[in-house]
Amino acid sequence: MALSKAVAKVYLAGPEVFLRNPHEIGEAKIAICASHGLEGRFPLDGDIDFDGMAIRECGYAIYRGNEKLMLECDAIIANLTPFRGPGMDVGTAFEIGFMRAAGKKIFGYTNSSLTLFDRVLKANPKGLKRRKEPLTGMLFEDEEKLGVEQFGFADNLMIDSAIHESGSTVITGKSKRRERYTHLGAFEDCVRHAAVQLQELNT
Amino acid sequence: MALSKAVAKVYLAGPEVFLRNPHEIGEAKIAICASHGLEGRFPLDGDIDFDGMAIRECGYAIYRGNEKLMLECDAIIANLTPFRGPGMDVGTAFEIGFMRAAGKKIFGYTNSSLTLFDRVLKANPKGLKRRKEPLTGMLFEDEEKLGVEQFGFADNLMIDSAIHESGSTVITGKSKRRERYTHLGAFEDCVRHAAVQLQELNT
Repeated sequence: MALSKAVAKVYLAGPEVFLRNPHEIGEAKIAICASHGLEGRFPLDGDIDFDGMAIRECGYAIYRGNEKLMLECDAIIANLTPFRGPGMDVGTAFEIGFMRAAGKKIFGYTNSSLTLFDRVLKANPKGLKRRKEPLTGMLFEDEEKLGVEQFGFADNLMIDSAIHESGSTVITGKSKRRERYTHLGAFEDCVRHAAVQLQELNT
Repeated sequence: MALSKAVAKVYLAGPEVFLRNPHEIGEAKIAICASHGLEGRFPLDGDIDFDGMAIRECGYAIYRGNEKLMLECDAIIANLTPFRGPGMDVGTAFEIGFMRAAGKKIFGYTNSSLTLFDRVLKANPKGLKRRKEPLTGMLFEDEEKLGVEQFGFADNLMIDSAIHESGSTVITGKSKRRERYTHLGAFEDCVRHAAVQLQELNT
């Protein structure tokens, strides 16, 4: 008789929650996870009754649902695709930090093939300025005199490094601009990679 | 004989690390903390020897230093002031999530007096569009058809809610645009508030 193996639960973080129909992409991601032996959990899974709640209380209730869902999972697969600017979604960054301190495995992917540095460069049509007294990894600054990280990372060093220290690496894909929140190629590569790593943990 | 009281250690997170002279503002913040009975710890405190290291390894070393520093602290005071777009700095968001899961107290302040919704609105000169089938707290969407949170929060709901669930609230200040990363009025209000809360924990 074969022993049944525990299926790893994975929290699916990313800016998809801001799409018109987040359930649709959530279900597609969960199906991809299932095809690689993982149980995907999408942030909107929780059934919250918002009836009669003040709008701020709705926000807090969504937060509590997400926090509970994260703690039930063994790992996070985070979508680092840029969101309203050169950097990633703030909520997803929060969740990566949360899962790191909670001792979970962290995986990440992005549909941008550029580094954070190159995206900040693109967002500054007048170019970046070389600093006279640069700090490590910050040779250039933008118009607001804020240093621009140049570590070759996909996003802020806390993100790429947390994923690295967790034993993984950011999976980088490419998609058309208008498909950057819906294209699931890099996501599936990341799921495949996570499935191998999470299986190794179980054996 | 009076008993000596343990001084709470506070991790000082924010986009100040991107300023030309982060040590200067770090020291100013530490001095304000000290004047309210708290021990401030600034992310650049750690002495790392980068000699001969590849640039990515420098990033990982900085990360490990920050992670260690966070775990040594009892609380975080995070600067949520917008950074390269309508939202806050991604590294700081990561750190708030990290400290939340690590069971530390979370405090936050911002030098923007606008809500996230109003800043996204400002960043979209053509305006936002009302959704036909809105989800809770997301009645409008931007040009990329991404929903815009309208919970009355200073930033992404994960941030404001984590601070709320930790027993605090975001302190909102106001500064001139060019002083938004250096003005310390809202920071000092936040330190004052944190000092009271952290003292209550000790008694």
